[in-house]
Amino acid sequence: MTGDAYVAGVGMHPFGRWPDASMRTMASEAVLQAVGDAQLTVRDIQVAYFANSLGGLLTGQESIRGQVSLHDVGIRDIPIINVENACASGSTALWLAIRAVRSGEFRVALAVGVEKMFVGDTQRTLSALQTAADTEATAGQGLQFVALYAMRLEEAIRTGALTTEHLAKVTTKNKRNGSLNPYAQFRKLMTEGEVLAGRPIAGPLTLPMVSAISDGAAAVIVTASPGSNGAVRVRASVLSSGAVDGLGELVVRRAIALAYEEAGIGPEELNVAEVHDAVSPAEFFRYEEMGLCPAGGAGELFDSGATGLSGRIPVNPSGGLSARGHPVAATGLAQISELAWQLRGQAGARQVTGARIAFAQNSGGWLDGDAAACAVHILEATNAA
Amino acid sequence: MTGDAYVAGVGMHPFGRWPDASMRTMASEAVLQAVGDAQLTVRDIQVAYFANSLGGLLTGQESIRGQVSLHDVGIRDIPIINVENACASGSTALWLAIRAVRSGEFRVALAVGVEKMFVGDTQRTLSALQTAADTEATAGQGLQFVALYAMRLEEAIRTGALTTEHLAKVTTKNKRNGSLNPYAQFRKLMTEGEVLAGRPIAGPLTLPMVSAISDGAAAVIVTASPGSNGAVRVRASVLSSGAVDGLGELVVRRAIALAYEEAGIGPEELNVAEVHDAVSPAEFFRYEEMGLCPAGGAGELFDSGATGLSGRIPVNPSGGLSARGHPVAATGLAQISELAWQLRGQAGARQVTGARIAFAQNSGGWLDGDAAACAVHILEATNAA
Repeated sequence: MTGDAYVAGVGMHPFGRWPDASMRTMASEAVLQAVGDAQLTVRDIQVAYFANSLGGLLTGQESIRGQVSLHDVGIRDIPIINVENACASGSTALWLAIRAVRSGEFRVALAVGVEKMFVGDTQRTLSALQTAADTEATAGQGLQFVALYAMRLEEAIRTGALTTEHLAKVTTKNKRNGSLNPYAQFRKLMTEGEVLAGRPIAGPLTLPMVSAISDGAAAVIVTASPGSNGAVRVRASVLSSGAVDGLGELVVRRAIALAYEEAGIGPEELNVAEVHDAVSPAEFFRYEEMGLCPAGGAGELFDSGATGLSGRIPVNPSGGLSARGHPVAATGLAQISELAWQLRGQAGARQVTGARIAFAQNSGGWLDGDAAACAVHILEATNAA
Repeated sequence: MTGDAYVAGVGMHPFGRWPDASMRTMASEAVLQAVGDAQLTVRDIQVAYFANSLGGLLTGQESIRGQVSLHDVGIRDIPIINVENACASGSTALWLAIRAVRSGEFRVALAVGVEKMFVGDTQRTLSALQTAADTEATAGQGLQFVALYAMRLEEAIRTGALTTEHLAKVTTKNKRNGSLNPYAQFRKLMTEGEVLAGRPIAGPLTLPMVSAISDGAAAVIVTASPGSNGAVRVRASVLSSGAVDGLGELVVRRAIALAYEEAGIGPEELNVAEVHDAVSPAEFFRYEEMGLCPAGGAGELFDSGATGLSGRIPVNPSGGLSARGHPVAATGLAQISELAWQLRGQAGARQVTGARIAFAQNSGGWLDGDAAACAVHILEATNAA
């Protein structure tokens, strides 16, 4: 388990509402882009981990979603493993691909995530999303995670740690970042007033704060050697599942701690981060869990500008889930795509200057108030600074 | 990737029609049995691969099926990965668990497969099973694999390689084996006349030849060291996906060849085998693909008695899919459970005398006429002969 692993290529199908796109057309586009980015061909891929969460319920394709979706690009006669972990499906596929390479068994592994969520019936999509929780325990209660975040945010506002303005401001920050990202679903700037005037969803949350229904795909090629195209080295790769924890998301803290330990670094060494903000103000909880600030200090950190694009540790330069969109199983690999571009200096107008160490956190599902799965990856640039 | 891996414990929830059982109750029973069999506790499990194919469509639980199903037995704060590969889902989970241990990262891994297929609506179950094929290509065409097997068998009968009596006889052999298996769904003996008089399904196939709708679960504990309970060593572990192949199931031949190569043995060294007989006469194709007989020689091999319980290489001592039942994602791990019991001399009335080397083949899904996935595992006894 001592072998190195590299992110050698990344690719995305833009997130958005794509009536004419299917799981297979979106997956194909992301895979071909990632393969080209790695200066390889699809025949070089030795094992593929295919992430999708809702295809069975929303498109009718269950069971062999990866084989069906990868067939057209010629990925056929290798091990293809279909994986699922709700909103953390994509990073779960990456976790497996990294292990396939680290073990020495494979030299080139593919992780790809795709979701087709616009199926002409929003209620059906929302019902499918409820399967990210224990359906026996929560049947008919709606999207549990939104209510749980609303409760946590109300508590933070009550204690003075955050204000309603903070909730609006972090959303406008991420909409601004998303406006610079050609792969983002929402590229329109919003004012704080517009965010607060949005349709109320739960507690202090309004519609612009909530991650959106989206179609899209993202792919990552993991290799055993860095190649010649500025591959990004994997410094840490952690996956864990939740224990019983009330509202604290203990699993996120644990996964982050394990990742810092594996990478041998602390939060002060991070230069850029993509975190799972299923509602954009959830980013504040991530600041604390990452150790970027003390407990209760997230609002102050944000006010200092540290997490803005030109701050000390820009968070969600891609726009995060509320701006980039959240095609469930693609999100974790979209984070990795964004960070690879950032570490290679290819992020265009949203480039974080001189980023060398990047952090990605992707959560999925809810069980007993904790996330059902959480993956954390830390990446490092290998090209000249 | 040079570390050894052992099957240290196995367990099953009996296959059958269990109206009061859920995915979680069946998975729990199989896991606790496997853990006890390995003389470990659930807290020793460091990573879990959870296989299920149809839970989203049939029970409504998609996305985090493993977390929900393993929660009650206390498997919570470790990496839990939900995997799917149609009828090969269980062996795909095993393939991953073996790699988790071989890599040195984990010392104890769980592979568990469960399926809840009786949901009070047979047509809904049959529709869900169609997702094992490309649903865009085959929409409304029914269960493709049955028709494909019927065509292959008709061709074998036309050329004289097999007779209709062979189709009946291999079914009665497997029903007889199943009658000795307390975990089997169908434990009634059938005569050849009863098999041939069964409801016609497709071509020469009758209902008793076809694998049945079933509820059930199976679990396997994989460890890095053999322990003290007669653990079984993994000699080969192969997973592949199908290419374009018409009716030949090329992927099965390729996976078998790779497994022999990895184990450094040939078919003559096998003592017992469990193969994927989605229709019981498919066992004849497996004989040829395994190299137990030359092309066209399956009927003759069967007539010699070699594949019967007291023959040279007993095949499907558990009863195979048509007698044991076929709860989709549990089947591959039920094969491994059976073989572990056989290699440890614990198979009761269906014990194969002196079995030391065992072979398991598990296919899943259909794409362009080839299986979408095929796993082959070769196991070896470590206890005194």
